[in-house]
Amino acid sequence: RIDGARLWDSLMQMAKIGPGVAGGNNRQTLTDADAEGRRLFQGWCEDAGMTMSVDRMGNMFMRHEGTDTDADPVYIGSHLDTQPTGGKYDGVLGVLSGLEVIRAIRDMGLKTRRPIVVTNWTNEEGTRFAPAMLASGVYAGIHDEDFANSREDADGKKFGDELDRIGWRGDDPVGGRPMHAMFEYHIEQGPILEAENKQIGVVTHGQGLWWLQVTLTGKDAHTGSTPMNMRVNAGLGMARIIEMVHRVAMAHQPDAVGAVGQANVYPNSRNVIPGKAVFTIDIRSPELEKLNAMRAEIEAEAPKIAEELGLGIEIEPVGHFDPVTFDPGLVEVVRSAAEHLGYSHMNIVSGAGHDACWINRVAPTVMIMCPCVDGLSHNEAEEISPEWASAGADVLLHAVLEAAEV
Amino acid sequence: RIDGARLWDSLMQMAKIGPGVAGGNNRQTLTDADAEGRRLFQGWCEDAGMTMSVDRMGNMFMRHEGTDTDADPVYIGSHLDTQPTGGKYDGVLGVLSGLEVIRAIRDMGLKTRRPIVVTNWTNEEGTRFAPAMLASGVYAGIHDEDFANSREDADGKKFGDELDRIGWRGDDPVGGRPMHAMFEYHIEQGPILEAENKQIGVVTHGQGLWWLQVTLTGKDAHTGSTPMNMRVNAGLGMARIIEMVHRVAMAHQPDAVGAVGQANVYPNSRNVIPGKAVFTIDIRSPELEKLNAMRAEIEAEAPKIAEELGLGIEIEPVGHFDPVTFDPGLVEVVRSAAEHLGYSHMNIVSGAGHDACWINRVAPTVMIMCPCVDGLSHNEAEEISPEWASAGADVLLHAVLEAAEV
Ligand SMILES: NC(=O)NCCC(=O)O
Ligand SMILES: NC(=O)NCCC(=O)O
Repeated sequence: RIDGARLWDSLMQMAKIGPGVAGGNNRQTLTDADAEGRRLFQGWCEDAGMTMSVDRMGNMFMRHEGTDTDADPVYIGSHLDTQPTGGKYDGVLGVLSGLEVIRAIRDMGLKTRRPIVVTNWTNEEGTRFAPAMLASGVYAGIHDEDFANSREDADGKKFGDELDRIGWRGDDPVGGRPMHAMFEYHIEQGPILEAENKQIGVVTHGQGLWWLQVTLTGKDAHTGSTPMNMRVNAGLGMARIIEMVHRVAMAHQPDAVGAVGQANVYPNSRNVIPGKAVFTIDIRSPELEKLNAMRAEIEAEAPKIAEELGLGIEIEPVGHFDPVTFDPGLVEVVRSAAEHLGYSHMNIVSGAGHDACWINRVAPTVMIMCPCVDGLSHNEAEEISPEWASAGADVLLHAVLEAAEV
Repeated sequence: RIDGARLWDSLMQMAKIGPGVAGGNNRQTLTDADAEGRRLFQGWCEDAGMTMSVDRMGNMFMRHEGTDTDADPVYIGSHLDTQPTGGKYDGVLGVLSGLEVIRAIRDMGLKTRRPIVVTNWTNEEGTRFAPAMLASGVYAGIHDEDFANSREDADGKKFGDELDRIGWRGDDPVGGRPMHAMFEYHIEQGPILEAENKQIGVVTHGQGLWWLQVTLTGKDAHTGSTPMNMRVNAGLGMARIIEMVHRVAMAHQPDAVGAVGQANVYPNSRNVIPGKAVFTIDIRSPELEKLNAMRAEIEAEAPKIAEELGLGIEIEPVGHFDPVTFDPGLVEVVRSAAEHLGYSHMNIVSGAGHDACWINRVAPTVMIMCPCVDGLSHNEAEEISPEWASAGADVLLHAVLEAAEV
C-alpha cells in the first residue's frame, strides 16, 4: 500500500503554491505559480531517483527506470494547473499519486520490468487558453503545435510566449513516445460515488463535449436616450441564448448537460447598451448522437435569436472531444486491483474531460476515480478525505505494478 | 456669434487626450488622461484671462470677471470625463463651448455685469465610479463627500484616493457658491432632433433613473460532471433577469426604457457554472410614477427568479434621480435665443442624466441640446457636424449674455 500520510502532505505542500482566496488554488497554466509548482514536483521526483525530460509543449515526463530499459514504459499522468478559483485535488491528486507510487515502490524495494513515467500535462483546465487538455491533445495529434502556441488568453497573451516566459519549454518532440499504457487517477468532480458510497470509480467511458464560442455584435448606445425600438442589444441576445442552452440541455435529460460559464459584455458600462457580447457554451453527453443533436439545435436556434434582435452572430467551436471508451483490458486491471484491495467500487462515466481522453487515442488508457465531497469541483471548496485519496492511490499502485510487470 | 472653427479645433485637440480604440475617447474620470485633459482646459482658460478655483471634489471653476464682481455669477458647466468607449462630444462640447463663449465675449469686447464661471464637473459618466453625476450631486447636497470619496471602481480603487493621486483635489468647499443660473449645453445622445430636423433642443425636462445593482449567489461547480438538477447557476439567473427587465420596460412603452449594460459572472471560466453574477439594471422614465412602478415590478420579479433557481439575491440601488423640470424662465431665455438667431428648435426631454439635473436643485438651471448622428452616443462612433456644434454654442452665447446682463 502507498503511504497515505506522505501523499496527503505532498498535496498540502503543493496547495501552498498559487493559493486561492477561499482555501483553494489559483495556479493557472503558464503563470509564475505554475512554474513554481513544476519546480517543486521536479525536485520531489529527482529526490525519488527519477529523471526528467520536457517536450516542446512543456509536458513533464519524470522517468523511474525499469529492469528492462528498452521496454515500453507505463505512464501515470494528470495535471498540476488549476482553475482560477479551483480546488487542491483536481489534477494534482493524479500527478502526486504517480509520484507516491514510485516512492512506495522504492520503499518496498520492488522492481518492475517496464519503466514508469509520471507525467504533468500542460494546460489541462483550458480556462486561460482554450481548449482544455491542450498539450495532451497535441501529444495525441489532435492539434498541431502552431495551433497550441497561438492560443490567446483574455489579455491577448499567447500560449507559446507564456510557455517560453516561464521557462518550461523543453526540447523533446511532442508525441510518439513508446507507451505501453497510461493511467490517470482523478477526483470524480461529480456526486455519484459519494451518493453510492463507493471508494473507487472504475472509469469505463468519458462524456463528449463541444465548446461553442459565440460573438454577438450589436450597437453600443446610451441606455437613457436610445428608444427601445432603436436598440441592438447584444447583452439581451446573450441572455436569451443562455436560457436557450439551458432549455436544450433539459430537453435531452438524462445524460446531457449544458451551460454558459464564461460571459462578457462590452463595453460593460452601466449606461451603455452592450454593443458586443462574447461567451462560451459548454454542452456534454456520453452519447455521441445526443451531443451532436444538442449542438445542431443550438446552432439553429442561436441565429434566430440574433436575427430577431438585429444582432450579428458568429459561432466558433473552441473545444471538442467525442465520447470516449477506455481500454477494456486496463479497465479490468483497475477493477481487479480494487477488488483485490477490498475497496468498494463501481463503473462510472467521466463527466469531465481529462488528458486520458486524448491519450486513449494513441495508447491503451484508463482512469481511476475517487469521490469528492458534495460532488463539488471547479470550486475552491473542493474537498476529499485522506482515506479517499489513499484508496485510489493504492488501486493505482496495484494496477501500475501489474501493467509494469513487477 | 461664436467662432465655430475655433470651437471645433479645441474639440479635436481635447480628443487627442485619452484616445479610444475606434476614433472616440477613453478618458475615464480620475485617470491620468483625465488629469491631462484638465490641464489642457486650464491652460486654455488662463490664456483667456480666467482664474481657476477647484473644490474638494475636483470640480473646476474657471471664472471670467464681471463688471460687478460681487454679483452672483452665471455658470456654464458640463464634464470632460468620458465612457470607456465614449465619443468626443458627450460632455466635452458643453465645457469647451463655455470656454468659446468667453473667448467670443473677449473678441467682441463685450462686458457683462455678472461674472461667468465655466465648470468641469468631476465624474459625470458614472462608469468607473457609480453613481453618475457624482460630484455635481455632492455639490447639490444629494450625496456627502465621504460617500463620494469611498466609491470604488472595479479594481477596488477609491474615488477619493484616485482624486488625490491625479492631483486634482482642491481646497474649496463643495457647494454653496452664489449661482445666478446654470446652463448646460450637451449633445442629445438620442435620435429625436435629427429625425425632426431641428438644430436646437430646448430642454424642458429630464428623465428620472434608477440603477439597481444585483448580486446573485449560486455555487461554482463543474459544467461537465454536475448533473443539471444539482446546479445553482447564477449566470442563468442573470440571463432571466436581463430578459425580465426588457419585458418590464416594453410593458411600459412609450416613455420608458430599461436595460442591463454592466454584467459579470464569476469565476468566468468556460467549464465552471457561475457561482456569482453581478450586474446593474438601468431603468428610466420622464414620469415618476412609471419609473417607480418599473422598479417595484423588477424588485418583485427578480427574487422570484432567484428563488426558482435556488440563488441568493441582493439588490442595491447605486444610482437615482427623479424626473427633472428645468427652470421655466431660463427655458424661455434659451428659446428666444434660438428664435432670435433663426435656428430651428423644439422642446425636448433629456433621456440621459446630466450635471444640470442636480444643479437644478440649488439654482435655476436649463439645458440646450444639439443633434447627434443616428442618435448614437456612449459609442466611439458618436458624431456631430461642426455646424450643429456652432448653432448650439451660439444659442448658449446669447442666452448667457442675457442672463449675465451684457
Ligand atoms: N477535469 C477537468 O475539469 N478538465 C477540464 C476539462 C473539462 O472541462 O472537462
Ligand atoms: N449624459 C450622460 O451620458 N450622462 C451619464 C449619466 C446617464 O447615464 O444618464
